[in-house]
Amino acid sequence: MRSFDGEKEKSRIAAFIQGYVHQNGFEKVVIGLSGGIDSSLSAALAVQALGKDMVHGIMLPCKNGNSSSCEDAMLLAKELGISWERIDISSLTDGYFANYAPDASNLRRGNWTARIRMCVLYDLSAKYKALVQGTSNRTELLIGYFTQFGDGACAFEPIGHLYKTEVWQLAKKLSLPERIINKTPSADLWEGQTDEGEIGIPYPQLDEILFRLTELQLAPEELIRQGFPSEQVLKVKKMMKQSEFKRKMPPLITDWESGLKNA
Amino acid sequence: MRSFDGEKEKSRIAAFIQGYVHQNGFEKVVIGLSGGIDSSLSAALAVQALGKDMVHGIMLPCKNGNSSSCEDAMLLAKELGISWERIDISSLTDGYFANYAPDASNLRRGNWTARIRMCVLYDLSAKYKALVQGTSNRTELLIGYFTQFGDGACAFEPIGHLYKTEVWQLAKKLSLPERIINKTPSADLWEGQTDEGEIGIPYPQLDEILFRLTELQLAPEELIRQGFPSEQVLKVKKMMKQSEFKRKMPPLITDWESGLKNA
Repeated sequence: MRSFDGEKEKSRIAAFIQGYVHQNGFEKVVIGLSGGIDSSLSAALAVQALGKDMVHGIMLPCKNGNSSSCEDAMLLAKELGISWERIDISSLTDGYFANYAPDASNLRRGNWTARIRMCVLYDLSAKYKALVQGTSNRTELLIGYFTQFGDGACAFEPIGHLYKTEVWQLAKKLSLPERIINKTPSADLWEGQTDEGEIGIPYPQLDEILFRLTELQLAPEELIRQGFPSEQVLKVKKMMKQSEFKRKMPPLITDWESGLKNA
Repeated sequence: MRSFDGEKEKSRIAAFIQGYVHQNGFEKVVIGLSGGIDSSLSAALAVQALGKDMVHGIMLPCKNGNSSSCEDAMLLAKELGISWERIDISSLTDGYFANYAPDASNLRRGNWTARIRMCVLYDLSAKYKALVQGTSNRTELLIGYFTQFGDGACAFEPIGHLYKTEVWQLAKKLSLPERIINKTPSADLWEGQTDEGEIGIPYPQLDEILFRLTELQLAPEELIRQGFPSEQVLKVKKMMKQSEFKRKMPPLITDWESGLKNA
């Protein structure tokens, strides 16, 4: 993996948050706090950049999530000294499925929940005249492990360039609560869901593969030659390819036509 | 304005819709039908491209909208011979504001409504294994007259390169119902809302200004010299600038830093 200087990265990201927020005529950010490490780190960096009075945490629990998530988010808000509020979105999630789609899959329910959270975050950002600060990391952005127009929707992504393993390093550097650093990563959209269970590759290994495929621009065959299991390398390559659309704006006809020319 | 060949444009857009949908492994599209001209044209073109059995219209009325909108959308679906369904989203819109934001502005309510529609369209697109076909035109995309992650969210924008005045021309070419072609354009998010009332410049004039500023790359001063009212030219320029963020993915730190270098 690339070398990682936590102190330098902290200042660099704080400059980005401060610069971007102020440049766009804002002073405040709102952040959806899940109790997980990504949103916790994002919030801690916002406090470094803007001061604790300019950061507002929003917990958006629903019945299907883990009940300790919200407690962890409140613990974080308390440690950071930021204001926060909690809005139970169960009526917006369960209400829809009970009426229109009682047999919907976990995937549909999870995407719906992520998008409803986006709706609430954006509405509250308008209420408070704040920007919605993103919480996605590079690993999940690259493999598409997020909901398009859900948790992928925000004004800017301050930790979107950090691999998950770097998120852990920076969280330690900033002394986030141990409970948050040590918990098993989960999108927490249904019971028993874990990132590594769904993705099928542990994060340290996944990040090594992504680093070689993207920053080092190595071919999959080269990684396999280096000893990475071929099924993992090909799976990562496939996830990257299949999620390309999530990292782009909806194409216009001109994008499509120039894609054909360059194909 | 640029010259416009309706027949050629119809074929060109149909090729885009068919190519994009099939390339991504789909056969069907869902389209949110508002009864307005943009979504009606988008649906008519989808029928040209994919056949009427592969296009599903979804009406998403809420109490605040004009009641004739849904009737116009049903008229269109009948004329095109496509399947459709109607989901009243009032419980998802009024329910939220009654509980959490009884004093919210029209703007907040309108954005919320547009985003809830996106949530439903995307959920149904998963149910039907279809892509969400966009309905935005070039005029509204350029001035930012749409809700980010609301009506701006879709898989692809088949009419996103057409000015509003070209949308009218192509709708006539495709013989869409007169009632739909002749109605006053409105986002229909609250009573009495009209596009031209909100934007403050009639569409034919707005399109002429946008064409000169974007395709001809003329400076505002040049337009004013050509006789366009300076307050209109400067207003359009400002709307374009202020909505830039809506036409881009959320920036990463690397985007921000390279922006600083190139500034």
